[in-house]
Amino acid sequence: MSFTVLMLVIICGSVLVQHGDTETVLTTETESCMPNMCTLRKVFGAMTEKQSSMETRLKAIENQITQLKNKAVKVVFSAATGGNGHIGPVNTHTTMVYRTVITNVGNAYNRFTGIFVAPVSGIYYFTFFYIAGGANRSSLVLMKNNQAVVASIDHQTSHDEADNGGNAVFLQLQKRDQVYMRLNPNTHVFGNDRLTTFSGVLVHQL
Amino acid sequence: MSFTVLMLVIICGSVLVQHGDTETVLTTETESCMPNMCTLRKVFGAMTEKQSSMETRLKAIENQITQLKNKAVKVVFSAATGGNGHIGPVNTHTTMVYRTVITNVGNAYNRFTGIFVAPVSGIYYFTFFYIAGGANRSSLVLMKNNQAVVASIDHQTSHDEADNGGNAVFLQLQKRDQVYMRLNPNTHVFGNDRLTTFSGVLVHQL
Amino acid sequence: MSFTVLMLVIICGSVLVQHGDTETVLTTETESCMPNMCTLRKVFGAMTEKQSSMETRLKAIENQITQLKNKAVKVVFSAATGGNGHIGPVNTHTTMVYRTVITNVGNAYNRFTGIFVAPVSGIYYFTFFYIAGGANRSSLVLMKNNQAVVASIDHQTSHDEADNGGNAVFLQLQKRDQVYMRLNPNTHVFGNDRLTTFSGVLVHQL
Repeated sequence: MSFTVLMLVIICGSVLVQHGDTETVLTTETESCMPNMCTLRKVFGAMTEKQSSMETRLKAIENQITQLKNKAVKVVFSAATGGNGHIGPVNTHTTMVYRTVITNVGNAYNRFTGIFVAPVSGIYYFTFFYIAGGANRSSLVLMKNNQAVVASIDHQTSHDEADNGGNAVFLQLQKRDQVYMRLNPNTHVFGNDRLTTFSGVLVHQL
Repeated sequence: MSFTVLMLVIICGSVLVQHGDTETVLTTETESCMPNMCTLRKVFGAMTEKQSSMETRLKAIENQITQLKNKAVKVVFSAATGGNGHIGPVNTHTTMVYRTVITNVGNAYNRFTGIFVAPVSGIYYFTFFYIAGGANRSSLVLMKNNQAVVASIDHQTSHDEADNGGNAVFLQLQKRDQVYMRLNPNTHVFGNDRLTTFSGVLVHQL
Repeated sequence: MSFTVLMLVIICGSVLVQHGDTETVLTTETESCMPNMCTLRKVFGAMTEKQSSMETRLKAIENQITQLKNKAVKVVFSAATGGNGHIGPVNTHTTMVYRTVITNVGNAYNRFTGIFVAPVSGIYYFTFFYIAGGANRSSLVLMKNNQAVVASIDHQTSHDEADNGGNAVFLQLQKRDQVYMRLNPNTHVFGNDRLTTFSGVLVHQL
């Protein structure tokens, strides 16, 4: 561009115009307001070019702002077991189904299967709480696909009608990873709409 | 554009100016660099209009950026009961007052009433923990206005001096919804500055 | 700028040009398209100045967008004690070392010392859970530097093989503040890769 402008200068015989210095053109020709329409027009061309480039940048900025505003994918759930009594003891590893949904923004938790499926890759927070009577052991495990992550257990006791437990974890998931609570064999918990819960949230999308 | 300017150099004739086609003007006025001031002025008008429209877009962008930067309303609290002993048993449903404030960004939790009032609509996270001696039952309920959401209970037992419990939930609130902990009749907990707590945070503003 | 344009009007004797009203110049001189090159050139100067100022604003906006996009510092950790058995009883206040790291985005948690060091000032969320056998008391305290924040205790009992406990808090930290779990003298917990955990996250950078 500066080479081109230099060419302009040679041809139209005006004052040297340096790159981007359109204002110089307008201040140096003081002896007459008339001449050098040519110079003016060339400088006008430079300005048009700049305006066009600013237009491009404006569009890019407008796009980025749209992305920033839409960026926060929201995935949040809380559910309780529902029912009103003992869940288990079970014979085998059993996925806990929390069928009383309190919140399920993003619809990633399935109240029929008890499984949370990560809609996007990211860091998630999960927490669970339970109550269990003393007649049996309790052993609840937070699972990521086939892998145990954190757990809470409680021993059998004839002397304590109930015990509480829970745990929490921040866990990195890939899109489509499954997280759910597993009740271990020969263990039980007690549940209703409020006491034994499972919750999770997307903390950071990655 | 450098090609266009080169054309300028070689040629200098005039021609029809189409809307927005300011560069055409500058290439086609061949016989002299002087004439068609008229055309130049009209094209100049188009450019002025464009500049004005870009000004409007710049202002809109600057406003949106301000909003994006200010967007994160922060509402976060943690409090403990304070005191140093049994709270309850109570005769009636009683709002727990957590008067030792650890954090209260946004000032939405009231340490005199024990009530959290949502300053904006959104998804919030609440959690509570308590310890209680075995001489009485415990029954703590997290309330949203008049509605029980999650709870934690513990049975009476002569054999366990203390039991712990808690729960957590992600809950969608409207502006001005009230969330608080309710201690049920004939139940108690134990509290001081650290053991029996109530916390909450705005996760997503809606 | 408006002064300069006004001066244009007086000196060159053209139609009155009001602030920003470059288009007036171009529409009022209808009888001839030739004259007042002078006016045109001065108004052109004003437009150049405006373009330059818009360029400055565009750059500022582009910087702010870069900051907004990079803004979310991520600090998230979860860890379990590891091992497979009793931890304690200890003779003195002892920092719990959670050496099985589940997540440690931002690398602020040190699995060798058990200490989380805040990389930036802000509001953080911490939570911990544990299980402990009844043969000894349990007393776990979440510490901020030398200050106890929240805690969970459990009494000794011969009648309950295990008890669970935990707590959580939202805490404002300055950059370099240290947060860790302290096991009090003569108390114990039980730990492995899943049961006794410590987690934390940066909620809001301040």
